[in-house]
Amino acid sequence: MQYPKPLGRLIGELSKLPGIGSKTASRLAYYILSMQDQEAESLADSIVDAKRTMHFCSVCGNLTDQDPCAICSDPKRRQDMVCVVETQQDVLAVERVQEYRGLYHVLNGVISPMEGIGPDDINLRSLILRLQKHPEITEVILATNPSVEGEATATYIARLLKPSGIRVSRIAHGIPIGGDLEYADEVTLLKALEGRTEL
Amino acid sequence: MQYPKPLGRLIGELSKLPGIGSKTASRLAYYILSMQDQEAESLADSIVDAKRTMHFCSVCGNLTDQDPCAICSDPKRRQDMVCVVETQQDVLAVERVQEYRGLYHVLNGVISPMEGIGPDDINLRSLILRLQKHPEITEVILATNPSVEGEATATYIARLLKPSGIRVSRIAHGIPIGGDLEYADEVTLLKALEGRTEL
Repeated sequence: MQYPKPLGRLIGELSKLPGIGSKTASRLAYYILSMQDQEAESLADSIVDAKRTMHFCSVCGNLTDQDPCAICSDPKRRQDMVCVVETQQDVLAVERVQEYRGLYHVLNGVISPMEGIGPDDINLRSLILRLQKHPEITEVILATNPSVEGEATATYIARLLKPSGIRVSRIAHGIPIGGDLEYADEVTLLKALEGRTEL
Repeated sequence: MQYPKPLGRLIGELSKLPGIGSKTASRLAYYILSMQDQEAESLADSIVDAKRTMHFCSVCGNLTDQDPCAICSDPKRRQDMVCVVETQQDVLAVERVQEYRGLYHVLNGVISPMEGIGPDDINLRSLILRLQKHPEITEVILATNPSVEGEATATYIARLLKPSGIRVSRIAHGIPIGGDLEYADEVTLLKALEGRTEL
């Protein structure tokens, strides 16, 4: 027996989501059918609404429902520092630390020649223009991931900004707090040794 | 930093789904925002559409988009057997075997005094009425789960149908195919011994 058509379609749509296989999709679909009408409509509406109202901030490239985004338009934040990250999720990760009070620039990607993603395919040109337009920005923190692509992107940006005289820094890599030296991989340990600070 | 409102709402709605925690909900939400507009709308629409068009079959209680459902209105199926199951998913499970060609009756629940669910709270009265209306039904197969509630429900229905003279059977319980006697629990092994068949 096949699923009735509307149910089959719902399961098909749900299983397009990442990490949702056909079994989970079917479980979710049955759950949705067991919900109150207004709950299911609210779920559907929140999808359409988020999709319609959320867009990239014209200044920093973060996902936002206003423009400029809440961070860019917050006068209490330090206007002289910009933290460059790969994704919106990374902004939230740094914000969770509740220590950094500067601005952000979201690349929405990384340079990856293997996947044919060059410097023009990520949100990089707008960073250069932003720095030219706002001479009050004196430091750029490169917080791309410590992956091959993230490192390459950080190196590329650092080289690009060198002539401008802006201070460019890279977040530290090393043994995570709570981590175990014994189980650290060689590259992390190397980075930890290289990045040692005097006490 | 808080999520922008529409994004926060979407994450909230998604995390109401079973097995979706706040991390997964956030990952799904960002994925939805990265989808094409029409893909996201199609997902939202499939939820509303399924919710609007799917309902319980007035004959058997199965979820369907037509009435009576595809199984009840299939003249090629045996009209003299009714398999009683707990949920719609159980119908699909039995259908996957491709052996049973009779009809179904979906209880949409089980009798569970612990949770205050009595015989009147499940789709049981309609089974009795259905059997009275269709004297051609000569066998009822009880395929509720082998849980305390499922067993109790099966026993209750069997006792209820006894005076009518309809043949009532219960699916067999025992060692699953591919299972290992060594690791079978005592109750399953007991059921397997009790249900032994002569060769």
